[in-house]
Amino acid sequence: MYPVVPGHEITGVVTKVGTNVTRFKTGDRVGVGCLAASCLECEFCKSSQENYCDQIQFTYNGIFWDGSITYGGYSRMLVADQRYVVRVPENLPMDAVAPMLCAGITVYSPMKDTKMLESPGKKLGIIGLGGLGHVAVKFAKAFGLHVTIISTSPSKEKEAKERLGADHFIVSTDPKQMQAGKRSLDFLLDTVSANHSLGHYLELLKVNGTMVIVGAPEKPMELPSFPLIFGKRTVKGSMTGGMNETQEMMDVCGKHNITCDIEVVKPDQINEALERLANNDVRYRFVIDIAGQSSNL
Amino acid sequence: MYPVVPGHEITGVVTKVGTNVTRFKTGDRVGVGCLAASCLECEFCKSSQENYCDQIQFTYNGIFWDGSITYGGYSRMLVADQRYVVRVPENLPMDAVAPMLCAGITVYSPMKDTKMLESPGKKLGIIGLGGLGHVAVKFAKAFGLHVTIISTSPSKEKEAKERLGADHFIVSTDPKQMQAGKRSLDFLLDTVSANHSLGHYLELLKVNGTMVIVGAPEKPMELPSFPLIFGKRTVKGSMTGGMNETQEMMDVCGKHNITCDIEVVKPDQINEALERLANNDVRYRFVIDIAGQSSNL
Repeated sequence: MYPVVPGHEITGVVTKVGTNVTRFKTGDRVGVGCLAASCLECEFCKSSQENYCDQIQFTYNGIFWDGSITYGGYSRMLVADQRYVVRVPENLPMDAVAPMLCAGITVYSPMKDTKMLESPGKKLGIIGLGGLGHVAVKFAKAFGLHVTIISTSPSKEKEAKERLGADHFIVSTDPKQMQAGKRSLDFLLDTVSANHSLGHYLELLKVNGTMVIVGAPEKPMELPSFPLIFGKRTVKGSMTGGMNETQEMMDVCGKHNITCDIEVVKPDQINEALERLANNDVRYRFVIDIAGQSSNL
Repeated sequence: MYPVVPGHEITGVVTKVGTNVTRFKTGDRVGVGCLAASCLECEFCKSSQENYCDQIQFTYNGIFWDGSITYGGYSRMLVADQRYVVRVPENLPMDAVAPMLCAGITVYSPMKDTKMLESPGKKLGIIGLGGLGHVAVKFAKAFGLHVTIISTSPSKEKEAKERLGADHFIVSTDPKQMQAGKRSLDFLLDTVSANHSLGHYLELLKVNGTMVIVGAPEKPMELPSFPLIFGKRTVKGSMTGGMNETQEMMDVCGKHNITCDIEVVKPDQINEALERLANNDVRYRFVIDIAGQSSNL
């Protein structure tokens, strides 16, 4: 539906609150993610799993309560229902924390749900080191996991290990490395949004291991049955997170000082940034500085 | 490796035991399934999940302890290690219980593992009503599940409901029926071994629902990410079962009087039976009566 105003990783300061708003006041540092509205009455809304409500409305190009089309964060201001707003911890910069509202919760939610975060010492493989993947490394290391990055780009090894603290690196196009990694991982987090087959990644999992899919490739992924059944393995999907969980994730970020690695651009650089994004030329997220400031507000 | 003697759903009476055999004696009614040997030392062997040992050897065309090739059940006699032998309950006929050694344990193991059998009243969809599917209906009904058969064959509805006791039937090629079934099932058991896509089946699952794959299609299955991530759904593989679990399954069959629906053939009818099998013309398993008897031994 045009015109579209994109943006669903948004931080800002509250400038005004409605008369029924109880949870926020003017001046609060807050964030808005993917969700603008949901039915409020289904079991998922009632248990703050709004993200799985089947009447979910997104922050942009959704239909708001009043029937209007929702417009996202490429904007000087945003009106949001308080239910879909979270607090940003005081110690975190507003720009670097913004991508946590989607990239962060997208990996945090399944990491919690599959008990990775209760499994210090267990081995997690992260497929793809991009916006989602690099944040997943930070959560994983904060919770004591052993982290292997699995990537098609050998050039990312140094960065993965030295700067992000990953323990191991596998080049997925190298059959020897993939063979050596067989049955070595407890968990896999697949952040790849390009079309791909799951077979050779599944082989990296131990018996009974779990692979979580958070990317959304356009074409169906190929799932060969043998590595699935011979290893009693699990492939599970996950999409963003509920609002309580998003607040929890924000608080975890505050506690462990976790933010996204970003490159800040001005609004007049958006087109250029989108072009670079299409070429995977960003480490790891662009943040648009709408207010004209590039650091802590 | 030729010559091959197939057959891994085998029942018979013990005719002789070795000097170190403690668990069985001559005259015992026993069964042998898919497994002939495993390493005995890995965590899976130690926890009687021999089926996931990575040095597993099968009942036919495997390598036995002494280096010989294993030959299966199309035979007048069979030598097996006692570890891979189970007892057949006295009340069950030897012919109709034979297919439980593979078909039975293949569905029982994941049904137990994913807690279906502890979930009376929950809704299970079984994709495909063949050798595996019809046995799964029997287990599911014994444990109080609500059962939906999902099949490409409308002609199977009467049989599924009236004879096997299924509660509901969905023709998977009918978009209206599939649409009406969306988000209705807690579990899915996919027994289909033909090539297929998982997408429209996944839509039948509730949020957080689990689909178990026990078939082994030749080509990779198609797994579209949207029904997986939007429903936080799980796809899990499973392959037969361990030996303790196989004995447990046998005992459950004895208690609930569960056997396979079979058609008994004589050895000279094997080629004909295999041709009919290729045309799906069997309800639901052929059993070869090697001993020349067609009923309880």
